[in-house]
Amino acid sequence: MTEIAVTERTRHRRMKENGSTRRADLDAILAAGFVCHLGVVVDGTPMVVPTVYGATADALYFHGSVASRSLSQDPQPEVCVTVTHVDGLILARSVFEHGVNYRCAMVYGTPVAVTGEEKLEGLRVLTEQCAPGQWDYARRPNRKELAATTLLKLPLDEVSVKIAAGPPDDGDGPDAASGRWAGNLPLHSAYGPPVPAPEVPAGVPVPGHIAAMRLGSV
Amino acid sequence: MTEIAVTERTRHRRMKENGSTRRADLDAILAAGFVCHLGVVVDGTPMVVPTVYGATADALYFHGSVASRSLSQDPQPEVCVTVTHVDGLILARSVFEHGVNYRCAMVYGTPVAVTGEEKLEGLRVLTEQCAPGQWDYARRPNRKELAATTLLKLPLDEVSVKIAAGPPDDGDGPDAASGRWAGNLPLHSAYGPPVPAPEVPAGVPVPGHIAAMRLGSV
Repeated sequence: MTEIAVTERTRHRRMKENGSTRRADLDAILAAGFVCHLGVVVDGTPMVVPTVYGATADALYFHGSVASRSLSQDPQPEVCVTVTHVDGLILARSVFEHGVNYRCAMVYGTPVAVTGEEKLEGLRVLTEQCAPGQWDYARRPNRKELAATTLLKLPLDEVSVKIAAGPPDDGDGPDAASGRWAGNLPLHSAYGPPVPAPEVPAGVPVPGHIAAMRLGSV
Repeated sequence: MTEIAVTERTRHRRMKENGSTRRADLDAILAAGFVCHLGVVVDGTPMVVPTVYGATADALYFHGSVASRSLSQDPQPEVCVTVTHVDGLILARSVFEHGVNYRCAMVYGTPVAVTGEEKLEGLRVLTEQCAPGQWDYARRPNRKELAATTLLKLPLDEVSVKIAAGPPDDGDGPDAASGRWAGNLPLHSAYGPPVPAPEVPAGVPVPGHIAAMRLGSV
């Protein structure tokens, strides 16, 4: 599938030029990060919680405990999970044309709790999305830990993707003659050097997969 | 006010050790960024949209157009606005103890549309939060642009703050004897060099306030 199916809810209304229905754009956005913002309705009002996620080709996995008042319900309520990368500022000639370069995916749907083998696989996906290599390096969840974890799966069935990139677009209007500088200011994220926990004995080296961790382009 | 008042909705339930009621923590989190995730309920289901904000001592300002299907209602519906900074990964000895270092503020309430002088002041606050110095450098909004802009104000009356920082806390458990490296991986964001728009004539220098733009510690 190279195109994302559009629904009434994901049809781009505002800033249509930023809407994308390319499946490759969705995959790249989900691959580039590990933190999403989960929206749920609690007692009729919205609640937005940051949490980690793992993405496969057809679903997101995330912890059910993050909005426990809402996500412990049966049946599960609908959610909206949004993954956003802020790529920089658009500095136009006029305040009105200012903006942000960003990539954003919004996933709508009803999550389901997963169990058994799929729960373990989902936790592997989530762990590897955050910290590639740690599933094989760290001690894996034991039975008690697994029982204490609620893992939810949200299908990538209803998705909206928006991308803004590039310079301000007021370069052909009257403001361009003002002589003001305009352009964009790219924003980059990167990991600093790993900080060992205080109890780690001197001489235990940083494992190669941790030293090599890079962000997609979050 | 140095303490944040706690309500039923903002009382910390999970991960209580991460909850903060220090007003200084809230102010620092809001000052360190310019993108929030706005949650609104549309047709009974949640919708989470990234957008820019500006913070004063007692309110957030943001554009009303971002979730136009919902936020053009009168009266305004309740929203949850969440500002999150991801500060790094917590790499524990066990998968179960992995986590993220972060700072997060969730603001609940009903926004109101502002007009007249306050609208202009709110736009100044929002612009200066994103791009300090641009309110005085760029062309300010004219009447037509102001009329095309809906600016909402959300009081900082009901707020929840959570902060996680530091190393993994499984250093005193049985996993610590496994000899595995553990620690945290700090994540930093920074602006790259400004990129001039294609129409900017050669020789127009990057203004000093743009060259000097830094992120709080987003």
